[in-house]
Amino acid sequence: MRIVITGGTGFVGRKLAERLLRDGAAAGPGGARQEISEVVLFDQAEPMPPIEPTNRLKIVTGDITDAAQVEALITPGTGSIYHFAAVVSAGAEADLDLGYAVNLDGTRHVLNAARKLPAPPRVVFASSAAVYGGEPPLTVDDETPPTPRTSYGAQKAAGELFVNDYTRRGIVDGRSVRLPTIVVRPGRPNKAASTFASSMLREPLAGQTAICPVSPASRMAILSPRRLIDCLIALHEMDGDDLGFNRTVLLPSISVSIGEMADSLRRIGGEAAAARILWEPDPFIQKIVDGWPGAMLAQRAESLGFKADANMDEIITAFIEDDLPAQRRLVAGG
Amino acid sequence: MRIVITGGTGFVGRKLAERLLRDGAAAGPGGARQEISEVVLFDQAEPMPPIEPTNRLKIVTGDITDAAQVEALITPGTGSIYHFAAVVSAGAEADLDLGYAVNLDGTRHVLNAARKLPAPPRVVFASSAAVYGGEPPLTVDDETPPTPRTSYGAQKAAGELFVNDYTRRGIVDGRSVRLPTIVVRPGRPNKAASTFASSMLREPLAGQTAICPVSPASRMAILSPRRLIDCLIALHEMDGDDLGFNRTVLLPSISVSIGEMADSLRRIGGEAAAARILWEPDPFIQKIVDGWPGAMLAQRAESLGFKADANMDEIITAFIEDDLPAQRRLVAGG
Repeated sequence: MRIVITGGTGFVGRKLAERLLRDGAAAGPGGARQEISEVVLFDQAEPMPPIEPTNRLKIVTGDITDAAQVEALITPGTGSIYHFAAVVSAGAEADLDLGYAVNLDGTRHVLNAARKLPAPPRVVFASSAAVYGGEPPLTVDDETPPTPRTSYGAQKAAGELFVNDYTRRGIVDGRSVRLPTIVVRPGRPNKAASTFASSMLREPLAGQTAICPVSPASRMAILSPRRLIDCLIALHEMDGDDLGFNRTVLLPSISVSIGEMADSLRRIGGEAAAARILWEPDPFIQKIVDGWPGAMLAQRAESLGFKADANMDEIITAFIEDDLPAQRRLVAGG
Repeated sequence: MRIVITGGTGFVGRKLAERLLRDGAAAGPGGARQEISEVVLFDQAEPMPPIEPTNRLKIVTGDITDAAQVEALITPGTGSIYHFAAVVSAGAEADLDLGYAVNLDGTRHVLNAARKLPAPPRVVFASSAAVYGGEPPLTVDDETPPTPRTSYGAQKAAGELFVNDYTRRGIVDGRSVRLPTIVVRPGRPNKAASTFASSMLREPLAGQTAICPVSPASRMAILSPRRLIDCLIALHEMDGDDLGFNRTVLLPSISVSIGEMADSLRRIGGEAAAARILWEPDPFIQKIVDGWPGAMLAQRAESLGFKADANMDEIITAFIEDDLPAQRRLVAGG
């Protein structure tokens, strides 16, 4: 069967595609395991760094806000869709129309395209812990009601409602995941307020300095890319009936302080790496981070067997094993 | 100022328009009380029964799913919008595209039209207790998370998210109300599963028989049209800052059994009226009603001073005073 990943040329889509092609098979519509004939990465522009297409890996560029293009993408052989395409938080806040078009209508286009398929595809929708907001409790859990304070969070919360609705109607076999902050993200810093949490580990390990704008006491709930991919695959493979009507799952995470992150960098990367963190407090970023839940209890995910990282050292070690060589090449290439 | 009521020719819109024109003034953008120059009832077709336009009451027919028509409706002088236009539950379940177009995109069109106004209008959005679903607790309250089990409920829950988001962004000064079952609705039966709850009181009082398809022990959470209008006006008039970021309010209701409703009809309408209820159990309707919360605790609305009806007798008496004469004319007219 064919698997489509929207927003697929980002780091999560790339890692997921590699994993799917290595696995070679996945649960098809109805549950029986099928050979994966093709993984399609759909994104708005040609991938950078480039991705070499193969006979089992295709790149399609297009516009998720265009219903006709999305319908053309989701061909009859499509057994599963991972829907990651999104305008991130700051972008959706800066451009109201773009955020609603991509994050809300884009999701509806994916769900509607499934109406023409011979069987309801499994759909894994990347939602976000940004559905929580305001003055959240210090710890959130699966029962904490969504109270988004960004357009991005509102659009993701609405997307979860639609995934549940289209699943209930038998159009898709959907699953939504609320993602914690993913650390260590490979590649370049982005415009997310959380980008420092990856930069302060990634850049020092690759020999560069990085600014940490928040206090060592600040806490964050984080998950590694390696565990994220494991969770996405596990959620895709499980029987939807075991989730029931509510298809939204908060992913597991560990709660660590920024100081603990720096300590772990020192233990694993050495004193020289730790010294490459430049501590430059930024009250604006500090305030945003203070508004995030410092810990999340993902009871449901844990009861389903999904695993958070064991500790901060494991997260950094996974980055070194999985991503540091490519990161060094990226840095060397300028 | 001008007040627009979408879906305005239904019984709630009619009653609200009468009340607004009688009051003569309402809180304008910013809060200062302003004279109401015009009330506009927007709906998809000419009103039936007809409504005579006046120099202060206008009827506009159009399509809420057409962004350009909605933008043309919300002219610069518009100070407030009551957004009631919707495809009801059974309709949204039967026609997926129509439900999303009217209930979801129609709401977005109203919110987007406000972007061109000189000041953020007050928007009162009619949501529904249908955002609760599944196996709800016997009693729901303001803290019960939305778990819709109908497309209608999902669309209304998403609309609440958008009203909060556009309010946070300063585009509108929004308020969403989750409506309990409204009893006694005047007029004809409709296709809602709850229609019997009004019919079993309204028809006997007007001299007709009516079928009650559920057991006397079944409980429902209900609110009279008279109290509903009071709540809508009170919510519109209050300072939005007193609501905070979450602009959704579950309206108050009383929990009554179907048997208590029949007893009240007997007390007020007499034995002859009570005898006009034909008890014909319908397992399909019974199952739907069993899935509704039999009681709702609207702590937030009550703390704001909104009032439920005192008891069932008061609800029937209000119907007799406000609506029975017109109902008798309707029946007499065939």
